[in-house]
Amino acid sequence: MKTVVWKSLSDTQQAKALERPAISESASITEAVEGVIKQVRTGGDAALKALTEKFDKVVPENIQVSQNEIDAAEARLGEEIKTALKQAYDNIACFHKAQKAEPLTVETMPGVVCELVTRPINRVGLYIPGGSAPLPSTVLMLGVPSQIAGCRKVVLCSPPPIADEILYVAKLCGIDEVYNLGGAQAVAAMAYGTETVSKVDKIFGPGNAFVTEAKRQVSNDHQGAAIDMPAGPSEVLVIADEDADADFVAADLLSQAEHGPDSQVVLVTPSPVLAEKVADAVKAQLKVLSRADIASQALGSSIIIIADSLTQCVAISNNYGPEHLIVQTKNPRELLPLLDNAGSIFLGAWSPESVGDYASGTNHVLPTYGYTRTYSSLGLADFSKRMTVQELSSDGLQALAPTVVAMANAEGLDAHRNAVTLRVEKLNNKK
Amino acid sequence: MKTVVWKSLSDTQQAKALERPAISESASITEAVEGVIKQVRTGGDAALKALTEKFDKVVPENIQVSQNEIDAAEARLGEEIKTALKQAYDNIACFHKAQKAEPLTVETMPGVVCELVTRPINRVGLYIPGGSAPLPSTVLMLGVPSQIAGCRKVVLCSPPPIADEILYVAKLCGIDEVYNLGGAQAVAAMAYGTETVSKVDKIFGPGNAFVTEAKRQVSNDHQGAAIDMPAGPSEVLVIADEDADADFVAADLLSQAEHGPDSQVVLVTPSPVLAEKVADAVKAQLKVLSRADIASQALGSSIIIIADSLTQCVAISNNYGPEHLIVQTKNPRELLPLLDNAGSIFLGAWSPESVGDYASGTNHVLPTYGYTRTYSSLGLADFSKRMTVQELSSDGLQALAPTVVAMANAEGLDAHRNAVTLRVEKLNNKK
Ligand SMILES: [Zn+2]
Ligand SMILES: [Zn+2]
Repeated sequence: MKTVVWKSLSDTQQAKALERPAISESASITEAVEGVIKQVRTGGDAALKALTEKFDKVVPENIQVSQNEIDAAEARLGEEIKTALKQAYDNIACFHKAQKAEPLTVETMPGVVCELVTRPINRVGLYIPGGSAPLPSTVLMLGVPSQIAGCRKVVLCSPPPIADEILYVAKLCGIDEVYNLGGAQAVAAMAYGTETVSKVDKIFGPGNAFVTEAKRQVSNDHQGAAIDMPAGPSEVLVIADEDADADFVAADLLSQAEHGPDSQVVLVTPSPVLAEKVADAVKAQLKVLSRADIASQALGSSIIIIADSLTQCVAISNNYGPEHLIVQTKNPRELLPLLDNAGSIFLGAWSPESVGDYASGTNHVLPTYGYTRTYSSLGLADFSKRMTVQELSSDGLQALAPTVVAMANAEGLDAHRNAVTLRVEKLNNKK
Repeated sequence: MKTVVWKSLSDTQQAKALERPAISESASITEAVEGVIKQVRTGGDAALKALTEKFDKVVPENIQVSQNEIDAAEARLGEEIKTALKQAYDNIACFHKAQKAEPLTVETMPGVVCELVTRPINRVGLYIPGGSAPLPSTVLMLGVPSQIAGCRKVVLCSPPPIADEILYVAKLCGIDEVYNLGGAQAVAAMAYGTETVSKVDKIFGPGNAFVTEAKRQVSNDHQGAAIDMPAGPSEVLVIADEDADADFVAADLLSQAEHGPDSQVVLVTPSPVLAEKVADAVKAQLKVLSRADIASQALGSSIIIIADSLTQCVAISNNYGPEHLIVQTKNPRELLPLLDNAGSIFLGAWSPESVGDYASGTNHVLPTYGYTRTYSSLGLADFSKRMTVQELSSDGLQALAPTVVAMANAEGLDAHRNAVTLRVEKLNNKK
């Protein structure tokens, strides 16, 4: 890891130090995804089968995974992992249930009642990537809130063969339909529907460049589907002072680094001594990792920043806006009110990022790539929508009438004015 | 208005009856907007001045409106409209203040504390369209929540010359900077910044096809800005039974129709008698409107649907998903729990759409064009973002460790496991 002293850098160098790698926008990916979406929309199930054979090199018997297969997966799984997944499920459910919005009722003026009510999004689609290892934790992070929100139909796509852990969690979360589908074709199928695959209103979940591009394309099409948030490489920023345990900090940096070669890892500290200790600990711990190759690549573009003070550390973090923000300082909670632009924050020595990835209860689907400035950590709100309601009494309308009439006149909208004056006249005639 | 009997229609005819007009995706608009954005990014203020002269046919002395000009606008305005705007401001502020999210703290397991905290979006940009009449109400709907959320910088763009009403409301809402800018160039300036115009993180507000396309383009660019929601023509659906006052219903349909020739207007009723009365009342009331031309065009593509029952009316409405939903029935509140997919709901005879447009307290920026299925009525939440926090005690981490270790093993992520086991070992060594 490269170490820099913040105050020795020019403004340009500081900006450069916090710059994220450009996401290559490849015209070939855009075109390939356009082609896949078109193929699925016109060819339906037959196109899905052909695309799955082409990209995943397997031909599942059916697009939809049967209940029997799900039950068999559950039976095959060991008790240890089942217990772990159930504990994670409970914690995530506990935190997301607490996010339920109570209906809000406000009388803004006598006789003018305004309300905010919430409804679940009807049909949602969850995408779970395939790859070297299964990701049951992501099924929990998407499946639990969709279940608690009360979405009426929840479908899940994952490239075949789907791991037992994923099928087991899908069952825990009461997911209605599971499909043997990956890549852009899975996103297209959920956005537009086919003979077998149910069309959904909103698509959630991470994926590779093709999945990301497919989500972007269907979310730009009014007949497609909404999506959770824009995607980018995963990242962590650690703020640590001389009180921090260098081994803990190194372990946290490495858990981010092993996610992928494009992972971003940043340590900001006012302590040059800690910086050196962490750099050494990273080297030592890296050796024994099974994914040392991946982690090494990520560390190549990572950085240790030596700041003047904790206040400057906070400013650097707020400017960078990390997905994960770990604070290992003497009094981490003191810094919380100052922290902005982060996805999820981990306070203190006993809160490694991996607890949030899996089981503390928070969601691990978080804004990345600086989107923390405007996007939220995924939560129950993303699986629901808010509608407003107003109900006026005749007295309420009469009291508000002069305001509405004056504004309608200013905006030159006669019918808006008439809708009020006509009612007020009827009320006056009754008297 | 065309009248149809729902049960006499085939499935295809029913779908056709509720179909919205296609939004023409014009390649020429896309290209023109790409050009404008490029021009603003490279040319800055000079490009803005040239584009304003070209499109708005005026050359404002300065891009930014001075405090003196704002104060002069306030002095010129009459007391009646000022009082009205202040009343509307108070009601909107009252309803949006009530939407403030309290921080949430949950102990999901002993020693495992999860929190949800909210932060304002730092810098927001508000777009207010120009046109035949000023739209101070839209300034209220965007300015009030940005003020209550505590956004640190709020800027407003509107095509010159900016009406006194708009400047007055900008002052009421404490907007920091007001710019003489309209169209795609205004969106580009706020998304990327120029010498004079502050770059913002998120852009809000309605606009014409160029503004909409510019918002789409900058929101697809990671260096651009987030946006509030996708846009579409404004629309109302009224559910009314034989108890409804036909004049009131007609007035509400017409207030939607006068918004623009592409406005969508739908009446759904179980009462053929009411349907006829409303059709007659619409004709009569239309005659005296100053915007009768526009309203007539909108009515040309509008429809009255005769349903079997109120239950069927509700199903039709939920399927259509209107921006505005007016319920004028004997017991409107009874229907509320059944209503889904709407932007804002108006209950009962004394709640015309125009009160929500202006002054009841609800926001008039609402999802249209079927986006009610996944998007919310604009509210305080759109001007803020949620971050999660977790803090574990050493006991909490020890209790959660087996879960995290089992899941990290299942997902093949050693460093994630090590970040936990290393801490647990240190704890055990201490004992
Ligand atoms: Zn992780
Ligand atoms: Zn209106």
